[in-house]
Amino acid sequence: MTLGERQGDEKNDSKYCGVETEFNDDMPLLLSLNIHGGFDFVVAPLMDPAYRPSLLVSSNGGSGVLPFVGSDLVLSPSQWSSHVVGKISSWLDLDSEDEMVRRDSEITLKQEIAWASHLSLQACLLPAPKGVTCANYARCVNQILQNLSNMQLWLRIPLEKSDDDDDGGRSPNSMGEEHRDSWEMWNSFRTLSEHHSQLSVALDVLSSLPSVNSLARWFGEPVRAAIINSNSFLTNARGYPCLSKRHQNLVTQFFNHSIQIVLSGQQMRNLPTGTSGSNSHNNNNQSEVIEGMQRHPLRSYLDYIAYLYQKMDPLPEQERFELGYRDYLQSPLQPLMDNLEAQTYETFEKDTTKYIQYQRAVAKALVDRVPDEQASTITTVLMVVGAGRGPLVRASLQAAEETGRKLKVYAVEKNPNAIVTLHSLVKIEGWEKIVTIVSSDMRCWDAPEKADILVSELLGSFGDNELSPECLDGAQRFLKEDGISIPSSYTSFFQPVTASRLYNDIKSHKDLLHFETAYVVKLHRVARLTSPQPVFTFNHPEDLTKKSNHRYKKLRFEMPTDTGSALVHGFAGYFDSVLYKDVHLGIEPSTATPNMFSWFPIFFPLRTPMCVQPGVPIEVHIWRCCGTSKVWYEWGVTSPSSSPIHNCNGRSYWVGL
Amino acid sequence: MTLGERQGDEKNDSKYCGVETEFNDDMPLLLSLNIHGGFDFVVAPLMDPAYRPSLLVSSNGGSGVLPFVGSDLVLSPSQWSSHVVGKISSWLDLDSEDEMVRRDSEITLKQEIAWASHLSLQACLLPAPKGVTCANYARCVNQILQNLSNMQLWLRIPLEKSDDDDDGGRSPNSMGEEHRDSWEMWNSFRTLSEHHSQLSVALDVLSSLPSVNSLARWFGEPVRAAIINSNSFLTNARGYPCLSKRHQNLVTQFFNHSIQIVLSGQQMRNLPTGTSGSNSHNNNNQSEVIEGMQRHPLRSYLDYIAYLYQKMDPLPEQERFELGYRDYLQSPLQPLMDNLEAQTYETFEKDTTKYIQYQRAVAKALVDRVPDEQASTITTVLMVVGAGRGPLVRASLQAAEETGRKLKVYAVEKNPNAIVTLHSLVKIEGWEKIVTIVSSDMRCWDAPEKADILVSELLGSFGDNELSPECLDGAQRFLKEDGISIPSSYTSFFQPVTASRLYNDIKSHKDLLHFETAYVVKLHRVARLTSPQPVFTFNHPEDLTKKSNHRYKKLRFEMPTDTGSALVHGFAGYFDSVLYKDVHLGIEPSTATPNMFSWFPIFFPLRTPMCVQPGVPIEVHIWRCCGTSKVWYEWGVTSPSSSPIHNCNGRSYWVGL
Repeated sequence: MTLGERQGDEKNDSKYCGVETEFNDDMPLLLSLNIHGGFDFVVAPLMDPAYRPSLLVSSNGGSGVLPFVGSDLVLSPSQWSSHVVGKISSWLDLDSEDEMVRRDSEITLKQEIAWASHLSLQACLLPAPKGVTCANYARCVNQILQNLSNMQLWLRIPLEKSDDDDDGGRSPNSMGEEHRDSWEMWNSFRTLSEHHSQLSVALDVLSSLPSVNSLARWFGEPVRAAIINSNSFLTNARGYPCLSKRHQNLVTQFFNHSIQIVLSGQQMRNLPTGTSGSNSHNNNNQSEVIEGMQRHPLRSYLDYIAYLYQKMDPLPEQERFELGYRDYLQSPLQPLMDNLEAQTYETFEKDTTKYIQYQRAVAKALVDRVPDEQASTITTVLMVVGAGRGPLVRASLQAAEETGRKLKVYAVEKNPNAIVTLHSLVKIEGWEKIVTIVSSDMRCWDAPEKADILVSELLGSFGDNELSPECLDGAQRFLKEDGISIPSSYTSFFQPVTASRLYNDIKSHKDLLHFETAYVVKLHRVARLTSPQPVFTFNHPEDLTKKSNHRYKKLRFEMPTDTGSALVHGFAGYFDSVLYKDVHLGIEPSTATPNMFSWFPIFFPLRTPMCVQPGVPIEVHIWRCCGTSKVWYEWGVTSPSSSPIHNCNGRSYWVGL
Repeated sequence: MTLGERQGDEKNDSKYCGVETEFNDDMPLLLSLNIHGGFDFVVAPLMDPAYRPSLLVSSNGGSGVLPFVGSDLVLSPSQWSSHVVGKISSWLDLDSEDEMVRRDSEITLKQEIAWASHLSLQACLLPAPKGVTCANYARCVNQILQNLSNMQLWLRIPLEKSDDDDDGGRSPNSMGEEHRDSWEMWNSFRTLSEHHSQLSVALDVLSSLPSVNSLARWFGEPVRAAIINSNSFLTNARGYPCLSKRHQNLVTQFFNHSIQIVLSGQQMRNLPTGTSGSNSHNNNNQSEVIEGMQRHPLRSYLDYIAYLYQKMDPLPEQERFELGYRDYLQSPLQPLMDNLEAQTYETFEKDTTKYIQYQRAVAKALVDRVPDEQASTITTVLMVVGAGRGPLVRASLQAAEETGRKLKVYAVEKNPNAIVTLHSLVKIEGWEKIVTIVSSDMRCWDAPEKADILVSELLGSFGDNELSPECLDGAQRFLKEDGISIPSSYTSFFQPVTASRLYNDIKSHKDLLHFETAYVVKLHRVARLTSPQPVFTFNHPEDLTKKSNHRYKKLRFEMPTDTGSALVHGFAGYFDSVLYKDVHLGIEPSTATPNMFSWFPIFFPLRTPMCVQPGVPIEVHIWRCCGTSKVWYEWGVTSPSSSPIHNCNGRSYWVGL
């Protein structure tokens, strides 16, 4: 029936809510009760929980009919696949010390998964590992994953972490005894299973929650579902179930990350009953009137979850625009080597925020350069280098108009296709006397005069990664000694992240090249493990005799100690740029320019994800290397342990000069 | 001139001894002095140590002639490549905080290596990393390694480790400050450089040595040279240099691992001088009489090293036989699927020790089964299953003769080619009345009677890895209820090892398959990090109704705490077998049967080597999995961190049934 609709986010899977059920031989009845009760799918056992292969052998061993719930014919194929998640028998204990239990568990696991595959279920819920180790469980699941069609396996993991975390630099193996962090169990399991893309997590949300930092880790993990037991709910003044503030926030975050809610457990006693009782949260009464059927015991819980779903703000416009790009890896542009296409110009020119910032910067520079009393006599020479189809020319002219300064503009552009548009723009706007169009690469243009102001927008997601430094070094020849460059500086930023989804996408290419490439990507299912730190800064203009654009930076990140351990799949990169004085532009999260969409973050992957224990710093090294025909980055980690140096000699990823 | 010859080990490179020299413009003179002084090669600077690229630019920047030692023409190409190891300028500091020093170092390093390549030197000695980090150094070396022809780079590493190791579970990153272990620097460097096969170690041996366990780690690392400074020597009663007992043992181990010695430093004062002084250790006086040349200042040190070389025992015969197999990876035999070749039978039949053990076991079993007083009346039925060309038939008959028991022998063999030899053997030996030859697979042979004793030798290096359990399960049908199986049991063993050479050989295949295969290999350049532990045991005969040959074992190894950190490249496997009662046979190092050469150890690699900190256990899981047509192992590590499960579903390595 869905939890509701959220404006701008209609395709979000988390509007479907499930319910965990007991074993029931009559699957059609079970499904019908729960679907009519308002749920979209059931998480239901597929096999009689009393079944044990070893008992079968000794008793009859004859018929060969396994005690599955019904046959495949009791539901239609689409009912099975749309409305049923298989719940693997919860008695399974694949790491039991008892070999008989272990063998029974292995056999049953294989049989149930085989049956679920036969039914084409979309997913199965695997029971939580029982002990402190899970190696045999992981091995069996790993074997199964190798031959599994499309089915997802959701490993149930209780969302718990003990809070006594003053064991900073403890040995990495002391898990289980003195402290418990279920994330470590998951991490071991998925590492043993080679980060298989069909293995994901169903979090069991308990009544008490770990710290916010510790919860945040999970949003970089492949969490598909969150199972909330009715006993994690509180009761409001009117006797209805509700959740604590922290639980509410968590559920909202689940919705925002397309994680489906599954309700579980029994109806609490003392809850208002009866089919006609109206729920304080739910405005939608239609669902209440189901004739002749008993109200679902978890209905008030479902209504509350629906209420949380519906009370979310509509998705902001920018988020809506970027929805399709979430976690989608793109290779960075090569604007120097390649000429941009019209469509690309079209997209970026729509980013009005950006041009407003440029206009503000130019205006301030003009006012600083030309006092009011000389406004009518002095003509400032402004050169737009990399003029494209003209948006910075327009912004500059508007700044001149706004400040009453006189301008002479050179629009320098190397792309002959953009030059065509520029000429037509100048004609249409009647700028012929002010604007001179120059069809040339700024690095070799022989300028007829020197500029007061050099305006450029050559920034990539990582600041210097589209070779702004090299281009502006070339253009500086025709900037006056006391001239102004807009931007006057830019700085890149780095931040360690958990990003299992990006990792799996990169891994699917099965080559080194993709692991040594930086990607432009709208980060969404990502956990940011620390604050970002600055990496490289470039200033313009600069003393070129001393200058090299080679850079090396060592960064040391410390995670909040209450995060627990976490897996680093790579580093998110951002930039911030000072256009002029206090006018800046950037995407570094803490200072990001609002409503700007020209830049997504950049992502530098690690070939092998690195597990970081609490209290142990993450030390990363980044180099910006310059050759005769290309610029590239190399990167590597030296703590908690050393990684290989990535992208040696720019073998996998580089930007052409 | 070489340190001498060791019988059976004539090709050992460590007989060549080098000397580290100061910068000297006159390379021919330098070489001649040192070669005539008794050394085989020099480790000599290639460039004026006063050179700094940054100074050059500011002073003249003109001539473009770098201050290298001489030109390539001052020595012949073969002199350069046989007698000179390039010593890279020791002032280089690629991780200096001072950017100028760093840039100078980077440029000089590249220039010197390029020059050494031009000269086709076999190796260059890289200076030891200066600080606590080496990331930029490693990055530069890594860049160089990508395009290096055949030259080896020896990274100089001081052999030191502080002994205050009560910091058991400390955080992995606390290197440098409170404790110092130069191995960690090396480990970081080579990990950053992707374990490149041309990067190796030159150990600087200091006057005090770390613990034996800590030293042992290095024998699994690619150590090419050991540099011993004269000030690490002691002075004996007669005033000549000598080494402490521990240093002597270490030098002998270097010799045994083909590690070359390089002498360094100044002659100590008070040493007896003069060209005619006879050295107490050296019997070879020829080298003393070099007319007209001054005696080399380090000559008495060299003589002492030569003395140590010459006083080694000759290589034992078994070691000589196995010399060519050292660290050479072989795929295990598939004796069940494939038929062995005559050459293979020939080799294994020469292992007399093995057959003597079998004869002893059969003799004991015969005496147990048949009391002396019935020796002439009772005929024991003995079946050799997997008779091959007959060595176990012979051993059994000899046991019968030795004990005076009567025997009826069935020789069961599936290889029709071996059957031919068996027939001829029986004829030649006149065994026709005692021995019945059966050409059949033991698993399907329909025996005419049941056996008292079943003799087999189906063991692999890992015990059960040539499917002895499956074969003997098949043969057990025709063993009497109270019959005896020889062997009566066998157990496999596992041991974590450092084995960088094996790792690099496997890595060179650039595929997953080779990393998920177990290899038979004569382990030599390997560090055994703990004692071995038992894995799987199989007993024969066994109650077959309950039996499965599937096995799972979890092992937990603890390294001695004074080892320091170490890298685990994989696990050495062995077996021990109880043939009958106290007669055993095996290759587990602590109980290995002496002078037996039928089995080398087996090696199970890890896809990613795992660094283990002191105090942190190594936890490994091994499965023996049985399918309908194959048997295979899976293995994985869960501490210090989790590895992937190796060889899932036997995808890379299996033994056919």
